[in-house]
Amino acid sequence: MAEKQEKKVTPRSQDFAGWYNDVILRAELADYSPVRGCIVFRPDGFAIWEALRDELDRRIKRTGARNAYFPLFIPQSFIAKEAEHVEGFSPELAVVTHGGGKELEEPLIVRPTSETIINHMFAQWIHSHRDLPLMVNQWCNVVRWEMRTRMFLRTTEFLWQEGHTAHATQAEAEAETLLMLDVYRNFGEEILAIPLLWGRKSAAERFAGAVETYTVEGLMGDGRALQCGTSHFLGQNFARAFNIRYLDDNNELQFAWQTSWGVSTRLLGALVMVHGDDQGLRLPPRVAPIQAVIVPIWRKAEERDQVLGAARSCLAPLERAGIRAYLDAREGLTPGFKFNDWEMRGVPVRIEIGPRDVAAGSVIMARRDIASKEAKVTASIGDLPAATNRLLDEIQTNLLTQARAAMAAQTRSFDDYEALRRQMEGEGGGGLAEIHWCEDPVCETRIREETRATCRAIPLNQQGTRGPCIVCGREGGRAFFAKAY
Amino acid sequence: MAEKQEKKVTPRSQDFAGWYNDVILRAELADYSPVRGCIVFRPDGFAIWEALRDELDRRIKRTGARNAYFPLFIPQSFIAKEAEHVEGFSPELAVVTHGGGKELEEPLIVRPTSETIINHMFAQWIHSHRDLPLMVNQWCNVVRWEMRTRMFLRTTEFLWQEGHTAHATQAEAEAETLLMLDVYRNFGEEILAIPLLWGRKSAAERFAGAVETYTVEGLMGDGRALQCGTSHFLGQNFARAFNIRYLDDNNELQFAWQTSWGVSTRLLGALVMVHGDDQGLRLPPRVAPIQAVIVPIWRKAEERDQVLGAARSCLAPLERAGIRAYLDAREGLTPGFKFNDWEMRGVPVRIEIGPRDVAAGSVIMARRDIASKEAKVTASIGDLPAATNRLLDEIQTNLLTQARAAMAAQTRSFDDYEALRRQMEGEGGGGLAEIHWCEDPVCETRIREETRATCRAIPLNQQGTRGPCIVCGREGGRAFFAKAY
Repeated sequence: MAEKQEKKVTPRSQDFAGWYNDVILRAELADYSPVRGCIVFRPDGFAIWEALRDELDRRIKRTGARNAYFPLFIPQSFIAKEAEHVEGFSPELAVVTHGGGKELEEPLIVRPTSETIINHMFAQWIHSHRDLPLMVNQWCNVVRWEMRTRMFLRTTEFLWQEGHTAHATQAEAEAETLLMLDVYRNFGEEILAIPLLWGRKSAAERFAGAVETYTVEGLMGDGRALQCGTSHFLGQNFARAFNIRYLDDNNELQFAWQTSWGVSTRLLGALVMVHGDDQGLRLPPRVAPIQAVIVPIWRKAEERDQVLGAARSCLAPLERAGIRAYLDAREGLTPGFKFNDWEMRGVPVRIEIGPRDVAAGSVIMARRDIASKEAKVTASIGDLPAATNRLLDEIQTNLLTQARAAMAAQTRSFDDYEALRRQMEGEGGGGLAEIHWCEDPVCETRIREETRATCRAIPLNQQGTRGPCIVCGREGGRAFFAKAY
Repeated sequence: MAEKQEKKVTPRSQDFAGWYNDVILRAELADYSPVRGCIVFRPDGFAIWEALRDELDRRIKRTGARNAYFPLFIPQSFIAKEAEHVEGFSPELAVVTHGGGKELEEPLIVRPTSETIINHMFAQWIHSHRDLPLMVNQWCNVVRWEMRTRMFLRTTEFLWQEGHTAHATQAEAEAETLLMLDVYRNFGEEILAIPLLWGRKSAAERFAGAVETYTVEGLMGDGRALQCGTSHFLGQNFARAFNIRYLDDNNELQFAWQTSWGVSTRLLGALVMVHGDDQGLRLPPRVAPIQAVIVPIWRKAEERDQVLGAARSCLAPLERAGIRAYLDAREGLTPGFKFNDWEMRGVPVRIEIGPRDVAAGSVIMARRDIASKEAKVTASIGDLPAATNRLLDEIQTNLLTQARAAMAAQTRSFDDYEALRRQMEGEGGGGLAEIHWCEDPVCETRIREETRATCRAIPLNQQGTRGPCIVCGREGGRAFFAKAY
């Protein structure tokens, strides 16, 4: 282990993509697998996913949706039932052609998303307006055949939640779409400490089969945007394709109005890219598997028992206070090695305890969110749980503040197309560009082809913000463009 | 909904399999899907799975295992690396041959279990004795192509957890195997209220690739056994196949010793078949999504507000006491209809409240585990949370007591082969048969072919229990045989 640590990670400023992979491997979040495009979620990475999943699950259930589970396989004919849906997903499907030693009569698709099979079931369950709204969510794996993969961000198999709802009216379905967008945005800010831009997608970036797609977008440390969650208003497209109809108050058959919405394990990539630094991960306390690590420090053998004993007596009160704490009692490793190791893993609070601290009845607390050594504070052992909880709250808030400042510094308004193009030149990001755009796909395509920036979000509130399109000069509303993952 | 309820479920005593399907569909635990052999877990069924999964997950983590996630797909060549493993699983594999519109160079198997891919990764991660023990668990979907399927018990896709561990010594791996068997048994009894027989499997019933398989077996209401969980001692079979070696204290390379263990969504089937009756499900409180349902009762419109108000004022104190409570305020349905509906869904406690109860400041509590109407008790509204918690504890205990009695009544010792055969004749079960068996596969095969009973478990404690094999008369130990799902 000591050897591994000696090899430094690629500096973030030098090679962001190299740094990203180094941190994920070194912090043991994930590993490459022998299956093309698939990764292994190692325990330290999966524990972050579990923490964020459990919190988001509570928030989803609070909206009235209930969890269910639908088959992994989808009959090939189902995918074809919604015209835009099949066109969007066909190039990335994995197909099962053989089962139990025989060739199948109809090939099965490994789900890339579950609108088709879920809506087939909705058609069996929905008969009357009393069956509405019907709101289900599932946590599952999905498969999309990807040519160029990147850990967490774009993998052939990934984990996600997908919510699917059916409503009696258009207004109700639209409200549900926006409610879930709001759930994702609050979750991102409060739990992941990631500020999120939100709005609707342009027609070109819409989900295949949706009437309108809404998005929350994060800005990564290299100035590129990352789509962090989407919420789709499906109108009656799938209801018509799968014949989901209900008897209304007047005993007339009506097609249901629908939504779907999801976030995935790419959020783990966002955590790395928004908060990480050259020393490794920096985890928001709310999702950190270990929130506080105790590192005992001794030189002479006679100090060992005393220091370890004091360190142990700190652990139980922390755990009783609901803090996920860990005592690093490993032998044969220097304190400096341990400091680096836990910094790499992103643990928010480090508690150092040496012979002098034991004598003084105190410990030293170092915070991962502030690099400066002056940020260390002393706490009395008796006050440790309360002091740790206060510090964890501060760190959670501060990481969001830092990320907001970084996002603001990387957000620029442009009314000159050449200036936009110069900003987007070069290898890395380019930040978020706020422009006026007429919403004509021709102008969008020109921007994409010439600057590699795509439309990330069109803000919902457009009052008093119209201006000449940055490409063609016709009047348009505000929109955010950026190079994106 | 009123119409649905009028059609009674098939009586359990008349047609156990028909009753089983009727209850699952009527209680809305699951539904058939358009994909051969796959089912849909509806919210009421999935909520039971979530409750038992979360509790078992806590128990697994307490043993030191950590959750991780490995790819859904396994390269075909991996499955072939362990000779017995490939032979056991080959007939039931689902194969992906096309991805992203192209034929794959090497087909991918949809995991039927993950020993091969996990052990491939273990070989990358294990180098020294300091890397051991390595203990991971994953909750995931697996696929085994089944010709004859039955909801929850045998489906092409199912959900499960699979634990995989590697240890430095044989003794440690064997202890882990038995520890997990114990975790499953205690979990089954304490949480599912299902008494479990435990022991090792015969060679014929062993997991493909294991040195020894241990099992916990439940006895269903029709006298058939159901394997409810298994724990495998893998020896060094997979370590040799995947080259999992570590440097020991003497700096010599040694193969690791391994285990794997799992339980699946078939436990939902066990809950139905052990506890259910002609009125429907009877759920143990520890896994019941709704533990107590409040049914308000009124005849005249002027009673309605008063009764509903009192019912509402009962709900919040129950929830504050940590009870999963629900108020059935549906209009246009009779109390009798609601009673039947909640009995079908297996809710442990029903709280009835009518005008006279409101006047008396009390409610009537009915328990689902005892059919007799005399089992109803009165509770004062002020004492309702405490009374409900007491009743839930009683019901949890009583369901286990009832299931134990049913299992004991269906367990018989045989020392005469013809008597065993007569007992196993007929369509249904036949109960658990305790016999002496020499462990010769020839005798086992004869029993299976002539009685359809298979060896369910060989008890671990065999002291002083040897006797003549029921088939051949040679001396052997005790073993339990039964017809099984």
